[in-house]
Amino acid sequence: MGAHADIDQVDLAAVDLVTVLQALSDPVRLEIVRQLACGTAMPCGQVRLDVTKSTASHHFKTLRLAGVIAQQDEGTRRNTWLRREELDERFPGLMQAVLHDRD
Amino acid sequence: MGAHADIDQVDLAAVDLVTVLQALSDPVRLEIVRQLACGTAMPCGQVRLDVTKSTASHHFKTLRLAGVIAQQDEGTRRNTWLRREELDERFPGLMQAVLHDRD
Repeated sequence: MGAHADIDQVDLAAVDLVTVLQALSDPVRLEIVRQLACGTAMPCGQVRLDVTKSTASHHFKTLRLAGVIAQQDEGTRRNTWLRREELDERFPGLMQAVLHDRD
Repeated sequence: MGAHADIDQVDLAAVDLVTVLQALSDPVRLEIVRQLACGTAMPCGQVRLDVTKSTASHHFKTLRLAGVIAQQDEGTRRNTWLRREELDERFPGLMQAVLHDRD
């Protein structure tokens, strides 16, 4: 029995472009995506944001429901990662374009 | 003296990624962008949309203020075109990714 609990993950095939664009079109959510761009899972708390914890949670949820990130609870940690490969397959070039604009 | 009147065009260098993503994250506005993707200017009225004229005007304005499209009045026609080359320079790959998702 593992101590890992996946949080409901959406099927990216059922997510449309508008939903993903809406999820990405917020400065806090873009910042989350940029910090997760390295590709490795990290606890939500390690993503540095200038917002309250509840606001951050809301933004993480929006990204998760749009299929942009996935999350898994491990004990008291909620690991989070960018669904980069799946996003690249579903929306080719989109994440690269979004992450390219880092300046 | 020409009969052409440019409508205030934003400086794309001053437009950030969030603004462009917000402009693109609407089904009607995405449809406008797709119909303008051929690259040639067309009168607003030739863009076929399932919304009222005033709603359409609102969406054209949102796209224009985000630097996605440009418009020019020519007599009674308001010609509209996608600022594709400038967008490609400012946000490399973004329009290609957005327009790729046509299905």
